Amino acid sequence: MLGNFPAVTSEFERDTAVTRQDGGVAAFTDGGFPAVRFEAPVRAGWEIGQASNGGYLLALAARAMSEMAERPPLTVTGHYLAPVPPGPASVDVETVRSGRRLATLRATLHRDGRPLVTLLGTFGRAPESDVARMDGAPPELEPYELSPPVAASGEPPFPTINDRLANRLRRGDDGFRFGSPTGRAEVAGWLAFADHGPIDELGLLLAADAFPPPVFNSGLPVAWVPTLELTVHVRAVPVPGPLRVLFRSRFISGGLLDEDGEMWDASDRLVALSRQISLIPRP
Amino acid sequence: MLGNFPAVTSEFERDTAVTRQDGGVAAFTDGGFPAVRFEAPVRAGWEIGQASNGGYLLALAARAMSEMAERPPLTVTGHYLAPVPPGPASVDVETVRSGRRLATLRATLHRDGRPLVTLLGTFGRAPESDVARMDGAPPELEPYELSPPVAASGEPPFPTINDRLANRLRRGDDGFRFGSPTGRAEVAGWLAFADHGPIDELGLLLAADAFPPPVFNSGLPVAWVPTLELTVHVRAVPVPGPLRVLFRSRFISGGLLDEDGEMWDASDRLVALSRQISLIPRP
Repeated sequence: MLGNFPAVTSEFERDTAVTRQDGGVAAFTDGGFPAVRFEAPVRAGWEIGQASNGGYLLALAARAMSEMAERPPLTVTGHYLAPVPPGPASVDVETVRSGRRLATLRATLHRDGRPLVTLLGTFGRAPESDVARMDGAPPELEPYELSPPVAASGEPPFPTINDRLANRLRRGDDGFRFGSPTGRAEVAGWLAFADHGPIDELGLLLAADAFPPPVFNSGLPVAWVPTLELTVHVRAVPVPGPLRVLFRSRFISGGLLDEDGEMWDASDRLVALSRQISLIPRP
Repeated sequence: MLGNFPAVTSEFERDTAVTRQDGGVAAFTDGGFPAVRFEAPVRAGWEIGQASNGGYLLALAARAMSEMAERPPLTVTGHYLAPVPPGPASVDVETVRSGRRLATLRATLHRDGRPLVTLLGTFGRAPESDVARMDGAPPELEPYELSPPVAASGEPPFPTINDRLANRLRRGDDGFRFGSPTGRAEVAGWLAFADHGPIDELGLLLAADAFPPPVFNSGLPVAWVPTLELTVHVRAVPVPGPLRVLFRSRFISGGLLDEDGEMWDASDRLVALSRQISLIPRP
């Protein structure tokens, strides 16, 4: 029976699966972009407190876009309109342009007629090029096994997503957990799924928002960070193994903060860049 | 007659003006986002070669979104689908969600039924907060008058947009013009409109793409840079005067390059952050 394995589905793949509902949405506007509805239930287990993680929601909706485009994500932007607890949901996907190499689509995750996350993305792969120059490198970390874990789901604020992830932090970057923030709005570490599932292009969308907010290490009075918008650039498909990641908030001002992310794979290749903008909630 | 001045319109305001066409677009999808068409002619004078500048197009379409939202842009993403020469065009704007403070809209600039640029943005202002921490500062520049100009429109590739702008480069950063690139994919300088018009939130969208590509200073064989996607975060309304700006491409790999921008006003305040991802064209 060698080779006749059952299909192996990771927790991430299972919990971001979507089902195309042909005929569910009419084409619209006079211009008429083709539109398709996908059933996209928001599965339990990927929450921070009551609300599903923003990276999980981005990956879920982008999977529907990716299936419609028949291409992997290259650059995806999501705008977050409301907190999303697990439950039934749909994604309406529209193809704005489908070219030979790249396709641009927009989508809205909604429930009970209420939009929750709205997205715009370009899918496909760039033509190869030998032109290369890297001003940056993976963060220097102790080996995975020696790096401290992120808080488990049993600790307040009970982020159940931490049971789905096997992330480890750069030594010292767990200071915010113990009242000893580093004083720099930066968090680095190892990122992996708890079930050792592969991190593909859609997994990178989740990875971009699956670490504790770096502002927690700033020492500033910020206890939660509602994301307005998150953009992820997929730069390569990761080789197997945990990613090394670095997240920083450089500019905290005017009621807003940025968060920039770099994700590197086990072959030292940059696999994704991310940037989000968040509100600074009133204490 | 003191005080009875004629209305003063800057070149930028004049050339990004849009006209609402009520009834021009039906609401669409079963969910039904309200939709409005704006006439948004792409004016001549903002081109690089034959194609209108990406920042100009972003500002033009975002002005329609901003008028529909009745709020200034906070974060706007544009995906570029085709080169756009000047000429008649329309923007279809849809309100995905309009809240008390923030509104999220999407839009597509199109001509002859063909989508050219498609956008997603959140409009409005963040609630004020005293929480602040800046890891960065404006680039150090010689005074405006002593800084070298960007190439004029009379030089190849004839960027007519340089007649609308009065940008100056950091000394040495004009090296790419004379076959002496600095070797770093970085360009800093002063940014201003040629007519001294104010740079408001919509002007910042143009500013984010109104400098020579920093990759020109890398020494790599990249002669032009087709933008796939550009995101701008508006962080504050600039005070009058030229901006100090810094653009960098840190990660050039896999046929793609990033470009990060910082824009600072005369009061040393961060007014915008930008990031774009571009293809590396075959030589």
